[in-house]
Amino acid sequence: MAGENISRLLSLARKFNVFYLEGLPQRTCRPFVVDGKQVGLIRQDVVKQLVKYPEVFSIKHLEAEGYAGYVELNPAFRDYTERSRTVDKVLRELRELDVFVALRGWRDEFYEVKTKHLALLKMDRSATCLFGVRNYGVDINGYVKHPSRGLCIWLQQRSDTKQTWPGKWDNMVGGGLSVGYGIKETAVKEAAEEASIPEQLTRNLVSAGCVSFFFESERGLFPNTEFVFDLELPTDFVPSNSDGEVQAFELLPAKECYERLFSTDFKTTSCPVVIDFLIRHGVITPENEPNFTQIVELLHVPLQTLYEFDVTRFAENHENGQRNNIPPA
Amino acid sequence: MAGENISRLLSLARKFNVFYLEGLPQRTCRPFVVDGKQVGLIRQDVVKQLVKYPEVFSIKHLEAEGYAGYVELNPAFRDYTERSRTVDKVLRELRELDVFVALRGWRDEFYEVKTKHLALLKMDRSATCLFGVRNYGVDINGYVKHPSRGLCIWLQQRSDTKQTWPGKWDNMVGGGLSVGYGIKETAVKEAAEEASIPEQLTRNLVSAGCVSFFFESERGLFPNTEFVFDLELPTDFVPSNSDGEVQAFELLPAKECYERLFSTDFKTTSCPVVIDFLIRHGVITPENEPNFTQIVELLHVPLQTLYEFDVTRFAENHENGQRNNIPPA
Repeated sequence: MAGENISRLLSLARKFNVFYLEGLPQRTCRPFVVDGKQVGLIRQDVVKQLVKYPEVFSIKHLEAEGYAGYVELNPAFRDYTERSRTVDKVLRELRELDVFVALRGWRDEFYEVKTKHLALLKMDRSATCLFGVRNYGVDINGYVKHPSRGLCIWLQQRSDTKQTWPGKWDNMVGGGLSVGYGIKETAVKEAAEEASIPEQLTRNLVSAGCVSFFFESERGLFPNTEFVFDLELPTDFVPSNSDGEVQAFELLPAKECYERLFSTDFKTTSCPVVIDFLIRHGVITPENEPNFTQIVELLHVPLQTLYEFDVTRFAENHENGQRNNIPPA
Repeated sequence: MAGENISRLLSLARKFNVFYLEGLPQRTCRPFVVDGKQVGLIRQDVVKQLVKYPEVFSIKHLEAEGYAGYVELNPAFRDYTERSRTVDKVLRELRELDVFVALRGWRDEFYEVKTKHLALLKMDRSATCLFGVRNYGVDINGYVKHPSRGLCIWLQQRSDTKQTWPGKWDNMVGGGLSVGYGIKETAVKEAAEEASIPEQLTRNLVSAGCVSFFFESERGLFPNTEFVFDLELPTDFVPSNSDGEVQAFELLPAKECYERLFSTDFKTTSCPVVIDFLIRHGVITPENEPNFTQIVELLHVPLQTLYEFDVTRFAENHENGQRNNIPPA
């Protein structure tokens, strides 16, 4: 890409897709397989720790489908409960040993690990990035059609005491989908907790799609899908925090909101939702953004196709003792 | 995918991505290279004809990067004008010979063949599908917030005399980006021609993003990107056609518009724009569509990554006489 003329917005879209664009093509991560299905991707530094728990995780080394083997949760664990309990035990040990930065942010909040339609186990929210498990969240774009300032957007500043991205600017309302909560239900709950938005206003929430991207940080891998809601707010409404997780709210005209994305004070993984909003509402357009189509594609990377590792095909190869590079189907 | 439980909307999204999902993984198409850069993908049936013009097209047969060779426009043609003239001559011959259904729809309208920032040649619009050249178009979702019927959408029925998709239902306004026209400019022009929408209304056009998909038909390959505009119309406005390309307009409540997508009377390649509109406006939601995230991904397939064939790397291989399968970078 040397000498390539790229806009700062495309640079940002590449930054929140750093694993998709740079990590993934190196093919050093291994598919994480549970009950014969791929549910994650595991970095080498994590594999090095999991290898110490052979009764829980099997590390398969042969090359297959362009991967350097895979990691399998012991199939002897028969159900959701047994898998969840065993993995939780290992994670708590690893947390004690303090080998992963990610586990310092232990949440006591479970995320579900699932294939398209089946929940296979749950694990602490802080650990999903170690296993590259797909994460689903909900975000609300709170906006105002201001009579004099035009389209304005509410942002929140995260509390300085938050374990992840403390003090950074973020969407007005956002939260992860936890076990047992629906998507709209999570949006309404988070709107009340984070911004004290009453039910009479969240009744106007408009589902507006989702964004998908694949970020990586020192903590781990973040294959994130965020369900997006728009909420037009009255000009006189001012959000206020109820749960201590937010230290400020600010209403910004669309252009200023756009500029803030490039500040180091903005949470990188919240940029996709803001960019998607600014595109859908005609602020970022193909006329004013030279890399428009590339950016739209990077707001919707094909995560589903990255989680289709076929363990059956690998098994056949293994038995034949071959080291074939089978091109992806 | 046997036994997989998929919604009819996901089936439809797979249908307009039939090449992305089924054709592409077979790897029988060859990159089309102009001036060292990939600008298209060519099917075997087209290669068979191009091989008869060795002074214009070189067919390279060695395997490289998982492809069965590539097709190169003779690098002796030094500039845009010479390339355009030579290719046009071949296309007119092939049209005379009537070897391709696609060329029966000769348009006398040029499309530009370009890399990200550089126009390399132009060719008749009817021929781009033979070379799998990326196509860019513009679409307007005309909608009404009706006091009693709720959100309603204007659709057009294409004229029975159109060369492609005659008589099918389509977006209110749509058109290809031709040489010399801007994106917003094309939208305004098409709105006037196809639906007699006056300038005082098109002033309200809101740029709302783009959709990308990869369709295939007997005519050829369609790697399409459509720039999308929303236009809220007054309840008393009724579109009328000015250029003979439309035979009817109909205003449909959102739910009925959704149902019409599944009719055989709807133009397959116009479905993505309607689905994107219904998602952005909260009609199709993650609560009522079980395959929501997959569908959003299939409205934004990563076309840019399919056009990054590296001819330099192939050349090195060629000289070494190797037949390596180098995994994509």
